[in-house]
Amino acid sequence: MFQELFTPSVQHALDLMGIFVFAISGALLAVRKNFDVFGIAVLAEATALGGGLFRDLVIGAVPPAAFTDLGYFLMPLVAAGLVVFLHPQVERIQTGVNVFDAAGLGLFCVTGTTKAYEYGLGLTSSAVLGLATAVGGGVLRDVLANEVPSLLRWDRDLYAVPAIVGATMVVLFIRFDTLNAVTSGLAVVTAFSLRLLALRYRWRAPRAWNRRSEATEE
Amino acid sequence: MFQELFTPSVQHALDLMGIFVFAISGALLAVRKNFDVFGIAVLAEATALGGGLFRDLVIGAVPPAAFTDLGYFLMPLVAAGLVVFLHPQVERIQTGVNVFDAAGLGLFCVTGTTKAYEYGLGLTSSAVLGLATAVGGGVLRDVLANEVPSLLRWDRDLYAVPAIVGATMVVLFIRFDTLNAVTSGLAVVTAFSLRLLALRYRWRAPRAWNRRSEATEE
Amino acid sequence: MFQELFTPSVQHALDLMGIFVFAISGALLAVRKNFDVFGIAVLAEATALGGGLFRDLVIGAVPPAAFTDLGYFLMPLVAAGLVVFLHPQVERIQTGVNVFDAAGLGLFCVTGTTKAYEYGLGLTSSAVLGLATAVGGGVLRDVLANEVPSLLRWDRDLYAVPAIVGATMVVLFIRFDTLNAVTSGLAVVTAFSLRLLALRYRWRAPRAWNRRSEATEE
Repeated sequence: MFQELFTPSVQHALDLMGIFVFAISGALLAVRKNFDVFGIAVLAEATALGGGLFRDLVIGAVPPAAFTDLGYFLMPLVAAGLVVFLHPQVERIQTGVNVFDAAGLGLFCVTGTTKAYEYGLGLTSSAVLGLATAVGGGVLRDVLANEVPSLLRWDRDLYAVPAIVGATMVVLFIRFDTLNAVTSGLAVVTAFSLRLLALRYRWRAPRAWNRRSEATEE
Repeated sequence: MFQELFTPSVQHALDLMGIFVFAISGALLAVRKNFDVFGIAVLAEATALGGGLFRDLVIGAVPPAAFTDLGYFLMPLVAAGLVVFLHPQVERIQTGVNVFDAAGLGLFCVTGTTKAYEYGLGLTSSAVLGLATAVGGGVLRDVLANEVPSLLRWDRDLYAVPAIVGATMVVLFIRFDTLNAVTSGLAVVTAFSLRLLALRYRWRAPRAWNRRSEATEE
Repeated sequence: MFQELFTPSVQHALDLMGIFVFAISGALLAVRKNFDVFGIAVLAEATALGGGLFRDLVIGAVPPAAFTDLGYFLMPLVAAGLVVFLHPQVERIQTGVNVFDAAGLGLFCVTGTTKAYEYGLGLTSSAVLGLATAVGGGVLRDVLANEVPSLLRWDRDLYAVPAIVGATMVVLFIRFDTLNAVTSGLAVVTAFSLRLLALRYRWRAPRAWNRRSEATEE
């Protein structure tokens, strides 16, 4: 089914772009944490490939794509190398990184959902796994760096919602048999745009009821 | 074999109850860590489903039950929703949570061991995987929240021992061909009771020899 | 293919030795973190078996060796028991631990790479997975103990490079059809020696360009 959505080469190029931008975010965090070059490379790889690795283990697609496609492994090393030598500039272009990261989020939630459905999961489960694919790499990045995952923190701009919307659109398109290249692209663009708007207008999710008025543990 | 232990509907109900109470513990920790509502939902899901997910990946039961049974996914969301709106009350009934969590521990160590054995693992390995199923969700919860897992800390009441006892009882029953609904229930109740006693009388496990007399790193 | 490299009993003995020394390092960290005896046992198991478990899940070798070979499970318990009762002495012989840990690193990067190749991965992917096998247990150990993984930190002596060299030697031997007991042993000894030299002469990897002159986040 997926082959009908994008041509393989377009799909591969989009995948690599998503991997690249996620790797940049991992490498930048590694620089901020003062890791050495190997730590930077490891965190770039984990951020870029973690979500897809989890998805592939869950659906039984072993060995995972991360270990069968050499480009998937090399792309994060390229990103890490760029960050090692250019990191002050890269940090200055944080806006650019956020844009690409949002693109990766949009793409991965769509491709993750589609791949999960192809492997026989139900519609809801496919959307959940698509969401996990999109956010999993960032969670692994933060756990390895010994930080509370950005995904969970209330003081970070909305990250889950754009991916949830994108994944939900895909399963609705599947449900009503209208999934094709155009509607898939629409889901990618919607998730991408929502993430950009969340960043632009600092959209935050609410915390638990009455939470603000209480003493917090931290 | 498992079908003979409980009827599927009873088994399913017990599973969902275990998932529910573990999700409550994850959601409560998320509130204490000041996460937003998505962080609360994610931590509830991870706590409730993490142990079973690990077990299913290890025994090759893919896609894991967490992704094939919609109830497994929805139940933690219900728990998270309750915690978001009722958390002061829920925290006040910490005793109730502990009781249900103990029930989940007892149930998961028994069902985890049985499922591992059904998938062809040896007796000892089945017990180990049953233990991992019972404690895995809590470990994942603490790692994601960037805390030292309660399972490992000496200043928390005994948690592993009740699950070890329950899992060991199951493999002994299997070994002597006496595993049935009654003996399985006995293992659940034993683990459940031991955990309650550990909480009531603050049973703690010893640390390393001479540990108390030394300067510690923390 | 692997059977031709070492006789099964030699291979098994080497595996157990690697597991034992990695377990020692996990148990020692648990003592330093003030964990109870169960925490010590869990951390010993996770450190010793984590890398191989990840490798086996990725290549689809389920259930993983850690759950099919009783010795793999018991050996870390023996190591944990020794540490619980002898830990001041064990800490004093940190040099000895480092030597055994280096041996484990050398062995695991070679056996991990070979096993990955046997399961059909490409040469580069096999080397990457061999590296992950060698370092994975230590990363899991540090994550569970809520510390930044040693693998990533710039202020720790080179750890990845010896394993990369060992894994690379193995795939070069495979590529040129010269993998046998002698060349495998050569790769083990090379990785082992490089790690010892890194410890002896405090070799460190560089950090990102210009990193030293900037304010760091920590």
